[in-house]
Amino acid sequence: MRISGLAAESGVPVATIKYYLREGLLPAGRATSATQATYDAAHVARLRLIRALLDVAGLSVAAAREVLAALGSDDVFEALARAQEELPPRVGREVDTDAAMATVQALRWHTAPDSTAVRQLAVALDAAAQVGMPLTASQREVYGRAAYAIAQHDVAGVPTDSLADATRYAVLGTVLLEPVLLALRRLAHQQVAAERFGAPGPGSS
Amino acid sequence: MRISGLAAESGVPVATIKYYLREGLLPAGRATSATQATYDAAHVARLRLIRALLDVAGLSVAAAREVLAALGSDDVFEALARAQEELPPRVGREVDTDAAMATVQALRWHTAPDSTAVRQLAVALDAAAQVGMPLTASQREVYGRAAYAIAQHDVAGVPTDSLADATRYAVLGTVLLEPVLLALRRLAHQQVAAERFGAPGPGSS
Repeated sequence: MRISGLAAESGVPVATIKYYLREGLLPAGRATSATQATYDAAHVARLRLIRALLDVAGLSVAAAREVLAALGSDDVFEALARAQEELPPRVGREVDTDAAMATVQALRWHTAPDSTAVRQLAVALDAAAQVGMPLTASQREVYGRAAYAIAQHDVAGVPTDSLADATRYAVLGTVLLEPVLLALRRLAHQQVAAERFGAPGPGSS
Repeated sequence: MRISGLAAESGVPVATIKYYLREGLLPAGRATSATQATYDAAHVARLRLIRALLDVAGLSVAAAREVLAALGSDDVFEALARAQEELPPRVGREVDTDAAMATVQALRWHTAPDSTAVRQLAVALDAAAQVGMPLTASQREVYGRAAYAIAQHDVAGVPTDSLADATRYAVLGTVLLEPVLLALRRLAHQQVAAERFGAPGPGSS
């Protein structure tokens, strides 16, 4: 199909598609003349993925480009680490990870002190502590157990017949299921609060 | 203290403090002359909170202003709903919430179809489905149970002696513990993957 057909099929305007082509998010179509190219179902699927990364995961164009590049890796751990770097919170190299490492060790997990996720945990713990809500030991256990149960289920579902499928599952499962988990936590708060304090009045959300 | 002292105390540059004052994130100091004002410990604490919202929760200045305004509400549910509106993913009013409502009902939770969190869940579920990773029934149960366990612990900790404290706990607990939960999930993935597939080599993160 031409670019106009791709726009119609995907619901993404032609100007936006051209922008994604220029930014390297969408691979070029197959050239059919000096000024025209043809696109296929793979481009439609890629556009859906780009929109999910930008609109739902909330990534910048540069971050989405990195996540898309990570999908092409044949090293699942390396791809996941690259994708995690693009997720909030943004962290510098120079982060004091002592409190985060203590948290990980209290959960009897292992990680490298310079791993992206432990630096992100360090920044998140510090922010909570700074506003007077440091993570308590019981919060650590409850949040840690919940995260571990989710991870067990996630990892059990990793496709094992293809490295490309495994990488895609790991990267997109990290990036796109995070908003699902957060929305479920917000809904669970409503549910538990209603069970404990009675439902809020109509109009509350 | 003068604005220079506030900058020294908080580590936030004077120009940035002036920007937060103009944007209404930081309340004005007490005027001591036509061109000078004095600031106190409450301003230092507020600056810490502003930085946590911007740098760690990743909010825009406009979104941070809304979350800060919600902290002043004496209706916990209304404050939480206002704060949730500012969190990603951004959703419009016109969202098809059928799949999200079905998910909530399968978990035997209750919510209004127009609540912010259910519209955010709808957008997140749609994005995952669009890239070929729809939430499975077992994922729904595992993620739902994990979110519920977290919410039970969170709600049990709500301060009950002051509405202002309860609002602050609910709003900041939602906004600032989300990055903690996500970092823990990323670390749990590493841990479970290492248990199952063997640890990745040095240099992986």
